[in-house]
Amino acid sequence: MSQQPGPDRKTTDAAAATGSRLDSYVDRYATRTHGMTASEVRSLFSVAARPEVVSLAGGMPNISGLPLDVVGSMMHELVDRRGMSALQYGSGQGDPELREQICTVMQPTGISAHPDDVTVTVGSQQALDLVTRIFIDPGDVILAEAPSYVGALGTFRSYQADVVHVEMDDDGLIPERLREAITSVEASGRRIKFLYTIPNYHNPAGVTLTESRRAEILEICRRADVLIIEDDPYGLLGFDGEVPRAMRADDTERVVYLGSFSKTFAPGFRVGWALAPHAVREKLVLAAENSVLCPPAFSQLAVSEYLSGHDWMGQVKEFRESYRERRDAMLDALDDLMPEAAHWTRPTGGFYIWLTLPEGIDVKAMLPRAVTNRVAYVPGTAFFADGFGSRSMRLSYCYPTPERIREGVRRLAQVVEQEMELRATFGAWASPRRPGLDGPAPDQS
Amino acid sequence: MSQQPGPDRKTTDAAAATGSRLDSYVDRYATRTHGMTASEVRSLFSVAARPEVVSLAGGMPNISGLPLDVVGSMMHELVDRRGMSALQYGSGQGDPELREQICTVMQPTGISAHPDDVTVTVGSQQALDLVTRIFIDPGDVILAEAPSYVGALGTFRSYQADVVHVEMDDDGLIPERLREAITSVEASGRRIKFLYTIPNYHNPAGVTLTESRRAEILEICRRADVLIIEDDPYGLLGFDGEVPRAMRADDTERVVYLGSFSKTFAPGFRVGWALAPHAVREKLVLAAENSVLCPPAFSQLAVSEYLSGHDWMGQVKEFRESYRERRDAMLDALDDLMPEAAHWTRPTGGFYIWLTLPEGIDVKAMLPRAVTNRVAYVPGTAFFADGFGSRSMRLSYCYPTPERIREGVRRLAQVVEQEMELRATFGAWASPRRPGLDGPAPDQS
Repeated sequence: MSQQPGPDRKTTDAAAATGSRLDSYVDRYATRTHGMTASEVRSLFSVAARPEVVSLAGGMPNISGLPLDVVGSMMHELVDRRGMSALQYGSGQGDPELREQICTVMQPTGISAHPDDVTVTVGSQQALDLVTRIFIDPGDVILAEAPSYVGALGTFRSYQADVVHVEMDDDGLIPERLREAITSVEASGRRIKFLYTIPNYHNPAGVTLTESRRAEILEICRRADVLIIEDDPYGLLGFDGEVPRAMRADDTERVVYLGSFSKTFAPGFRVGWALAPHAVREKLVLAAENSVLCPPAFSQLAVSEYLSGHDWMGQVKEFRESYRERRDAMLDALDDLMPEAAHWTRPTGGFYIWLTLPEGIDVKAMLPRAVTNRVAYVPGTAFFADGFGSRSMRLSYCYPTPERIREGVRRLAQVVEQEMELRATFGAWASPRRPGLDGPAPDQS
Repeated sequence: MSQQPGPDRKTTDAAAATGSRLDSYVDRYATRTHGMTASEVRSLFSVAARPEVVSLAGGMPNISGLPLDVVGSMMHELVDRRGMSALQYGSGQGDPELREQICTVMQPTGISAHPDDVTVTVGSQQALDLVTRIFIDPGDVILAEAPSYVGALGTFRSYQADVVHVEMDDDGLIPERLREAITSVEASGRRIKFLYTIPNYHNPAGVTLTESRRAEILEICRRADVLIIEDDPYGLLGFDGEVPRAMRADDTERVVYLGSFSKTFAPGFRVGWALAPHAVREKLVLAAENSVLCPPAFSQLAVSEYLSGHDWMGQVKEFRESYRERRDAMLDALDDLMPEAAHWTRPTGGFYIWLTLPEGIDVKAMLPRAVTNRVAYVPGTAFFADGFGSRSMRLSYCYPTPERIREGVRRLAQVVEQEMELRATFGAWASPRRPGLDGPAPDQS
């Protein structure tokens, strides 16, 4: 329960205590359940829901720009015209027409794919789950960026994987650190199953892997015979309109590419996908059938209708503009209001900024004070499997209005200032430290 | 690949052969993938799709009676009125209002439940997956009826569970055999994690557990301290209109109850649920978050709107009538046309009849001949973890029209007669034998 952020800690600990007193099933659970703990993001949903709190915590896309009248009519027509398919079971791999459309959606990333290699999943979270399910035995090593996506870490933990973090800087994953991590894991006799990476507009780090590093990382993984899971929910949401080239575009056999419609259309349908080499795709479909039989036909056909009947790319451009405006509001507010000792990343797309405070400040311990001051964030430790990140936090600008973002940052800056004053008065306390994005990045120190 | 039924065997084996030649990932997969094989049901989808074949194989509900105009308008209104919720992320446990409605839906089974103990899942297949995930370590024993649901067996296998089958007869699971199975597994030093049972209108056996046996089985499981997973997708689809009392209604702490809207509304939304004791429910939600983050909000609100805005129980009554008519057509045709040496169950609800042929006939080997004669079924071995069931088949009457059902049974009877003639000419060959529903039931011999 130490994973719980402050504001919910009281209720959650109480519930946990009651739970363990009453849990007569405790000696029946599978070993893997030991790794299943409530994610910090989940508990924050309740905090974020209070209207007086500016939540810079959640990752909910701002879908207020969606044309509800258009979508509503489409759903009506879908039932009218294709109801017997939309309301029925479908195949485990997903709707063939949607898989074709997904290949078109991936084209801007440079990926040329065949629909037969696409597996539709219940959001890309299920793709993550299935990939982990087919590759990971307990104790296997997954390499992941430091920090990494909290939802992936939870899934990896639930399959009893050992996550080894690899340092990033403002240009993304550092190739030299990757080389070192591979050497070190191999020397320890453990087995690396894959590298999990979010190259574009990283969640939570807000950085993007440079083109030259992509080539270098592909080469390192080829030499070390390590698979790559390329998670790309934000690739189309770059603020300059350019779509970074996917690593999968340059290696069809070593890379499993994960995509999602949650950020480019709407998360409510839970439609994501995995593009995988043929043999892996076969395993993914078997695992998907064991897991949910088939993804919801209605969701799939709804997305399919939206892609074919609406200017979906025009909508993506509107989303980009809306997120760019919010990113600008947050960066401007941080520049104006945040104490100089803090530093942060400057995302060129996506939803998130990674903010790091001076050594000695415990961001998780600070959260209750922040919420008292009506602002919320996700403490950095949520994004590490190993307890690091205690000086950092993830700030999301995707959901609130620019005005609310500015107000949120103002409140946060107050709390940080108070925290630094406290620290100046009572002295620093020890805190685990990791270089890279948790420490000052080269151009920010 | 020996699990593949005949008609697909050629393509599947070819694909498998190619797959293993090309599968450079083969030494990377997790151990659990060894248990992941294509289900016989999946391969049969392609057979069933040929229009000239009468498929008595699939389990697709006949949703042609659904009022598409009503459902279409509801979807439109849902987006209009609640689009910002229906298109957004939701909670891992599921929509609170839908969970309340689910409690009402369960009332006819005698269950009195609190919405807080309900977890919404992506079909009840995901509930099965999550229950297995939180309870099963490799080598743990699951008790299951002989035969059992093919989708459950696949999931159990993928978590490396040992399934121990327990004999049934026309009154469902035999309590004495359950007692013996528990004693025998315990004597072998293995750990029983739960009993998986489908008490109502069993898939594939077509039988229903009697009331007195329910009490007896609950008592046996209490004494042996064994949990019960009560899977009940068909409970509302009894042809006499009565809803059998759920075991969960008489034991809130020992039973995890699984339900689904796939047969009472439509499978295309993939909405099912698990009702579990509080501590187990907490684990289920954590596992669900690792698996899919949250079930699709759109699907959940669609079902919720349908339940509150439509006479859903009236529709269930129409479904019942439609399935009763089909059940009658199949039983009549079997009585009229099937050779005397065959015997079969007489379901009082649900979708399936279990048909058993005389010893010496291999039903899986017979399938290609059946498909050549334009009729398909699922071979009984699909419903056993241990290779039994070779003389039996599952016949489903849920989807085709009564006329097609009668024609399908006529074609099947021809094939069975030919098979028996062949056998009379060339002599019987050995085949694994199991008593109970695979052999003649007491009242059928």
